[in-house]
Amino acid sequence: MEDKLFKYGVLTKNRVETFSDGIFAIIVTLLILEIKVPHLEHASSARELASSIAGLMPKFVSWVISFVTLCIVWVNHHRLFEVFKGVNIVFFWINVNLLLWVCFVPFPTALIGDYPRNPLAVSFYGLVMSLLGLAFFIARMYGLRHRRLLKDEVDRAAYKKSVVFAFFFGFLFYVIAAALAWVHTYLSFAAYSLIAVYFIFSFGTKKLHAVRQSSG
Amino acid sequence: MEDKLFKYGVLTKNRVETFSDGIFAIIVTLLILEIKVPHLEHASSARELASSIAGLMPKFVSWVISFVTLCIVWVNHHRLFEVFKGVNIVFFWINVNLLLWVCFVPFPTALIGDYPRNPLAVSFYGLVMSLLGLAFFIARMYGLRHRRLLKDEVDRAAYKKSVVFAFFFGFLFYVIAAALAWVHTYLSFAAYSLIAVYFIFSFGTKKLHAVRQSSG
Amino acid sequence: MEDKLFKYGVLTKNRVETFSDGIFAIIVTLLILEIKVPHLEHASSARELASSIAGLMPKFVSWVISFVTLCIVWVNHHRLFEVFKGVNIVFFWINVNLLLWVCFVPFPTALIGDYPRNPLAVSFYGLVMSLLGLAFFIARMYGLRHRRLLKDEVDRAAYKKSVVFAFFFGFLFYVIAAALAWVHTYLSFAAYSLIAVYFIFSFGTKKLHAVRQSSG
Amino acid sequence: MEDKLFKYGVLTKNRVETFSDGIFAIIVTLLILEIKVPHLEHASSARELASSIAGLMPKFVSWVISFVTLCIVWVNHHRLFEVFKGVNIVFFWINVNLLLWVCFVPFPTALIGDYPRNPLAVSFYGLVMSLLGLAFFIARMYGLRHRRLLKDEVDRAAYKKSVVFAFFFGFLFYVIAAALAWVHTYLSFAAYSLIAVYFIFSFGTKKLHAVRQSSG
Repeated sequence: MEDKLFKYGVLTKNRVETFSDGIFAIIVTLLILEIKVPHLEHASSARELASSIAGLMPKFVSWVISFVTLCIVWVNHHRLFEVFKGVNIVFFWINVNLLLWVCFVPFPTALIGDYPRNPLAVSFYGLVMSLLGLAFFIARMYGLRHRRLLKDEVDRAAYKKSVVFAFFFGFLFYVIAAALAWVHTYLSFAAYSLIAVYFIFSFGTKKLHAVRQSSG
Repeated sequence: MEDKLFKYGVLTKNRVETFSDGIFAIIVTLLILEIKVPHLEHASSARELASSIAGLMPKFVSWVISFVTLCIVWVNHHRLFEVFKGVNIVFFWINVNLLLWVCFVPFPTALIGDYPRNPLAVSFYGLVMSLLGLAFFIARMYGLRHRRLLKDEVDRAAYKKSVVFAFFFGFLFYVIAAALAWVHTYLSFAAYSLIAVYFIFSFGTKKLHAVRQSSG
Repeated sequence: MEDKLFKYGVLTKNRVETFSDGIFAIIVTLLILEIKVPHLEHASSARELASSIAGLMPKFVSWVISFVTLCIVWVNHHRLFEVFKGVNIVFFWINVNLLLWVCFVPFPTALIGDYPRNPLAVSFYGLVMSLLGLAFFIARMYGLRHRRLLKDEVDRAAYKKSVVFAFFFGFLFYVIAAALAWVHTYLSFAAYSLIAVYFIFSFGTKKLHAVRQSSG
Repeated sequence: MEDKLFKYGVLTKNRVETFSDGIFAIIVTLLILEIKVPHLEHASSARELASSIAGLMPKFVSWVISFVTLCIVWVNHHRLFEVFKGVNIVFFWINVNLLLWVCFVPFPTALIGDYPRNPLAVSFYGLVMSLLGLAFFIARMYGLRHRRLLKDEVDRAAYKKSVVFAFFFGFLFYVIAAALAWVHTYLSFAAYSLIAVYFIFSFGTKKLHAVRQSSG
């Protein structure tokens, strides 16, 4: 079975990463375009501008959250690719599925920014994030099944644990958090924040990464 | 004649790839910008939002199709560059022609998204895709004619076969699929889907790619 | 304590740089999109077009200033990464904070372009720039505290000096310049220009950089 | 004097190239966004769509010209960086000036697309291109003056010739072509086309580039 793994050849890991990094950089940057300079009646009135900027606050907050969320996803993407030795055609399409959900993130983010008290908007966000998490889970599962694709130094037990974590924190917890929106949308927001905090201070993949000091 | 091949020097393959990857990443990412957050009369009405999102479904489907199509093109572009040793000035312009059609793809895609029952819209899409396919065919033909540009390990017979496949699946079948729109647009859609499926599971270039496991 | 530095592994410095460079390239390029081709009553009237282009002059000037400012920031970002050996997870998030402010720059720049005589607009610009400067200061401070992250050839005394310079020129002077807007906005503009000129001809990091001639 | 060349250290040539390539890729890709899908009264009318697409023809032609022009500039940028060993801070700012004009190209291009019979629009385009050419000339002059920045294999006589060519074809001929618009705009268009054709088939830098076959 392993012989079939590279039947259609491998893709240059570097180019797949450049392509992915480009997508992340663009998505992250486009978010600010949503915030337009306010129109003032009196161009030199500091008071009017102050209230205009205050009115933009929800947009600023939503922008910062999206930015941080996409950077969390970038770190996870980086950690995923770090354990893989090469990219075969199946893993390429698994990565495309992942990037598809990454590109979609701005839409549900804008949705909760505009309708923070709409249960469907808030649970729709959680649903999209859970499908993004599922895409990561599928990618990690594929590595677990096809050990030959992983780097030799990857510890199997630690990697297995990271797959389990990906399922719970990336997929299941988002589904639960999305469901909570139908009780109260603020419960979902709290749950989404907790999951984000987990990812920022994530211990899950710790043992996978040896202390390397190469500047590459 | 071979002496003339590099008369104007070679271009750094790496920079041509970075440039191309950047273009692919941007085109793929810009597609989502077409989908705007719906405006709701009652900001907290889940029912109203549900029907708004349902109304956006054709846009979502068209977005996924474009995304997957451009990723298929990216894989083909990757495979094309994989067999080339270096990029001379002629091949650079052949690549520019290819990128030009890549950049144009969002236009016919939006066209069939808006007018799926208009035979001209549907056949226009096929025509653009066939010209993109023709650009790939020209690129592969150039490699066939100037063997010195290809990597030494490339098998000539297998490469020749890939050129023939590029002509049929990338160009001719799209022309036929485009013509079918004048019978019924759904015939074209079926044909376009079949060609896409062929490319995802493509066996054509199989023998070209040795099982390499380098992480680069 | 140093043992904890790489507890969560290192990130590939190269990918963090590609991601950052992508963000800089996009932000710099998007700025021109704000300038639209003027509408003419008489399409072939050179006189009418001349006055239209003259009317766009403030937009052109503001565009050049933003472009140069972001290139200054890019150089500083480059110099920051140059002294670091590797990127750990903490430094990654310090870099995210930095990129967040970089992405925000177009907003205050557009603000001072539209309302150059509004003291709040002018001091808001300075405030954002000072927070961007603070992000650089935090990044440099982190390197000072965790010497193991820096390259071996970095001179400690010279690096320390660069941290002090980052605090004064990147943060404090921008705060003062921002405050001056409440006296007269032109005083702020003069101060912002002086800080920019300092950065273009910056001597601060001079001794850090050995004369290397490698083409990499 | 040469000792001062690297007084402020060198920049990683690779990062400067990534930054530049990103800018080129984005500018090239954004051009297509100007072409919007036409609105049809009868969604399934092939006749109505045909006339709509025919009406977009000038936009398509202008888009192809911009695309090809920016690719010509990319090749010139590539050839410029190819002869340089490293990037010092002065050359970085020379490159920023160059990229500034690259980013500006879409504006005059849209201008001649909208007002092809307006002498100011047509000569404005030539003026911008001549300033872009001047930026290249300055960059090449800097290399001529500071021989240590160039790669060892660069032939001085051939390089000198390329500087002269850059002055005539990149700067002076564009100034003359721009001036011709005041006689008749079509004379300028003919002159611009001839200059473009020269650059595509340019022999000027021929002797600089050894026949290398490295795949890098």
